[in-house]
Parts: sequence; C-alpha cells; structure tokens
Amino acid sequence: MTQRIFGHIPGIDVGTKFSSRDALYDKKIHMNKRAGITGAQSEGADSIVISGGYEDDEDYGDIIIYTGHGGRDENTGKQIADQLLKRQNLALAKSMIFELPVRVTRSLGKGKGYRYDGLYYVKNYWNERGKAGYIIWRFELHKAMDNLEIIDDTPVQESDISISIPGRTIVTTSRIKRKLKNIREIKELYDFKCQICNIQLKLKGDNLFYAEAAHIKPLGKPHNGPDEVNNMLCLCPNHHVLLDNGAIWIDSNLKIMGITKPKLLTVLDDHKLKIEFLNYHKNEIAFELEL
Amino acid sequence: MTQRIFGHIPGIDVGTKFSSRDALYDKKIHMNKRAGITGAQSEGADSIVISGGYEDDEDYGDIIIYTGHGGRDENTGKQIADQLLKRQNLALAKSMIFELPVRVTRSLGKGKGYRYDGLYYVKNYWNERGKAGYIIWRFELHKAMDNLEIIDDTPVQESDISISIPGRTIVTTSRIKRKLKNIREIKELYDFKCQICNIQLKLKGDNLFYAEAAHIKPLGKPHNGPDEVNNMLCLCPNHHVLLDNGAIWIDSNLKIMGITKPKLLTVLDDHKLKIEFLNYHKNEIAFELEL
Repeated sequence: MTQRIFGHIPGIDVGTKFSSRDALYDKKIHMNKRAGITGAQSEGADSIVISGGYEDDEDYGDIIIYTGHGGRDENTGKQIADQLLKRQNLALAKSMIFELPVRVTRSLGKGKGYRYDGLYYVKNYWNERGKAGYIIWRFELHKAMDNLEIIDDTPVQESDISISIPGRTIVTTSRIKRKLKNIREIKELYDFKCQICNIQLKLKGDNLFYAEAAHIKPLGKPHNGPDEVNNMLCLCPNHHVLLDNGAIWIDSNLKIMGITKPKLLTVLDDHKLKIEFLNYHKNEIAFELEL
Repeated sequence: MTQRIFGHIPGIDVGTKFSSRDALYDKKIHMNKRAGITGAQSEGADSIVISGGYEDDEDYGDIIIYTGHGGRDENTGKQIADQLLKRQNLALAKSMIFELPVRVTRSLGKGKGYRYDGLYYVKNYWNERGKAGYIIWRFELHKAMDNLEIIDDTPVQESDISISIPGRTIVTTSRIKRKLKNIREIKELYDFKCQICNIQLKLKGDNLFYAEAAHIKPLGKPHNGPDEVNNMLCLCPNHHVLLDNGAIWIDSNLKIMGITKPKLLTVLDDHKLKIEFLNYHKNEIAFELEL
C-alpha cells in the first residue's frame, strides 16, 4: 500500500498528456484505473478524472461542477439510483473540510488520451436532483492559483504532508511550505468549533463540520509567521475575516479584544499556543491608530 | 467627467503593453497620470499601477500585497509619515466591501513601459508598520479566475455596471452577467447585517463593515438563478457557507430551518424577495435525504 500523495506528483508538469488510464495509474497521477475519484473517506480525495461521462458535469476551466460517484448503470452509464455521501463522495467532501488540493485530469475525448491540468480546491458541495431525476452530489472545485504551485516534495513520513508555494518571480521570490497535517490537527482538536465564538457550523452529511485554520502571525513576507499549530487558531469564517483584518485581536491574558463584550479565547491544554504570536498580531497588525 | 469603468476596458486585451503613463491614461486603463490608485472613496477603486516604487510592496504574480497611498517624500519617495485610510486607500477598501474588480497594470522597469495584467479582487486589507517605521495600509489582491473574464460590456447607464463571465469552452459554454450594483444595493439595504443572525462584522476603519451577497437560486447552469436583488440575501460568511451547502434553508413563512432554534429571516419592506427562489433552494438544494 503506497502513501496517498496530496498535491503535484514530483516530475509531472501541469499539461502533461497521457495515452490511457493505465498510464495515469503508472505515473501515480490517478491511482485507480476505473473510478473517477480516488481517495479515502477518512483522509480526503487526492485526484479526480473528468471523463465527460456524467451528464450533469460542468466544466468552466478554472471552475468545475463535478458530479459524485454512484447510482449509474454499469452498462449504459445512465443514472438509475440516488447517490450517497459515502466513500469517494465523502472523500471529496473531506477535501473541502481539510483544505486539501485535488489533482484534476481531463479526458481529451474518446481515444485521445488525458491531460493533467493541475490542482484544484473543493470550495463547496451539496446534493440536488440530477437530469435523470435522481439525487446526485455535486462538488464545486476552483483552480489553485498558478503561483501556488503545490508539490508534495518532502520525503513522506507518516502523515507529514507538505505543500510548497513557490512565488512566480516578478518582484519577490517566495516559498512558503504549507503543512496539510496541521490544518487537520487544529480543526480536529477543537472539533471544528470556533475558538472565539464556539460556533460549530454543521454541513450536510453525517458529522461533517466547517471551520477554517487561521494563522496568527501571517505566513509569508514580511511577517514570516511559522506554519505550526502553535501559530494557528480554529475559527469560523466570520472571525477569520476579522482576525486577518486586525479588527479583533487577543491580549496576553487570552482576552478577545475589538468585540463588544470582551471574553476569553478558548484554548485547550493540548494546544501549545505561543503568546508571542498573539502579541505580534496585536502590535503589528491590529494596533489602534488615528484614522 | 467620464463614468468610472469597473472591469476590463473594451478592446484592451490582458497582456497589452503601453509605452507610458500617458498611454495608460489615453486608453482609459488608468485615469491618473501620477497616482498608483484610481478610484473614489464612495465608489471603490477601479485600477492600480504597480511601479515597484514602494519598498513594502510584494508581488507574487497571482497574489499581490499592495501598499496604500500617502506619507512619502515627493522627491525621495521615502516613507516619512503614517498613511491614512482615506481617499484612494479607502477606495481600495471599498473595492473589497463591494466585491469590485480592480485593473492591475505593472511597470516593466524604468523606461520599459507598462503591461495591463487583468483583473484582481481585494481579499483583505489591514495596517502595519512598514520598513521605514511608519504605518502603512496593505491590500491583498487575488487574480480573478482566467475564465471569469470580466468586461464592462454594457452601455453604461447611471450605475448599471455589469460583469460578464464567459466560460472557457471545454465542455460547457456559459456566460453569466454579474450586476455589480446589486451587490452594493443588497449590502447597503441591510447595513451589512446578516439577514439570518443579524451580526454586523466591523472592519478596521470608520464605518466599514463586511458582509457577502448570496444568491438563493444559484447562478449558472443548471439552476440559472437570476442575478437580481429579489434572488439575493445579505449574509455573514458563516451563513453564506451554510446556505450554499444546503445545510440551512428558508421555508415559505420565512422561517430559517436547519438551525437549532428556528427563527424568522429578517426581510425589509424594500427588499422584494421572491418566495419562489426560497422554495427552489429548499426543494432542489437543501432537501433532506437518507445519507
């Protein structure tokens, strides 16, 4: 059993063409010769192939509305039953929840092979009635930024999966490593509850929730905050916007400031949050000033 | 006084080069021969030029951390005073708040001219201490998706400004018109308060708030919901995620369902919300099902 790779496969450029599903398999781009989605419902999905086989699929290039797996007649390919949010479909939902990149490969037409088109993020999923009248699951994928060239370039050890983001050199060259395991760790530690307001946003599906992994001292220049759990918070989208903007901040007693009724940040014992990063954010991003 | 155009200038392709700031002005790409930002603090900013003149600017290609205007010595270009969130800086903040596209033009180096690089969206702004020790305002811009080719292709009448989104033809061709004025209208009507939870997210600055314009019956195929205020809600990011996912829905009595304690949606008399769109969302996106 090989380790599942999230992100680019080293040595395979975006735009590379492949003659067949076998070739995609051999090069580790898509590790299943028949299924459109590869992944595990516990880990997330790492790759999809768009074959044009689903009547409900929509492909706008940078945005894809992808139809989930299941409920189709093996011979005709027609939808004959409802799809369930299980297995590969659940894996794609997990890719949204854990902010994992998904490799996208497109069929170039019957007998014309396949092209690896790079990485996408799952931005939303929902269910609806497909053209055939049965329930289908739908996944909205957005292309990752061109300059966020994500590769899994570290020797893979256990779940230590990294993303590296080399800047397209224009004025500045930058390379930021994103550690996917930390995103999952902070969200699971807090059970997807916002550390500021304690809200837990429940998505469709069994035990699926939405939260965001926020950095306190920002990544990248000029702040160069570390991509470590000790510099991260589990936040709802609302409080993520306000933290990044500096409209709210946390003082060194863990009191949340900038809100009407200051209250304490929820911090669990297992979360080795560094106060120095809270102070940096307060002093360098969130400081009050004359407008 | 000509009408300010948000989006592409008709007839000017992305990648077009210009010999000088005068040429950018003549072709209406950037309607000020000296300032880096054009816009009005009431309307938003429509264009920036990246000249490489600010020591704190960072350009990663698809993501730009742009430094605001002001506080520099006219002769040396050095930062000698704090920047304020006023005039062009406030205009850029408004571009985030009203979800307006900003034209980006880059200098190709001293004496080498300029290149129009297309549209970006302001995703965040904040203030920090720049390298020179003074307060600077910073704006994070993200490149608009390649296939979201935004052009202001309508005869401009009053504030009826549109975006059109032609799909890059791969499987599906699609063209969705986004009406920028409706985004602003719905947010201002509700004073940036979420119609579900009534939260009003205050950003840094005087009287600046963050909310999102959400469509009830989704835009684009297969739903083809209209881009009209009667199909829109003013929501906080949290409830926007849940509405799009179908985890919450609104019944025909305007009761919000899918939350622990169902309560009524806030709807003002001036908002001619169409119940048919709420019913469509409930029946086609949010329906309960066996998982």
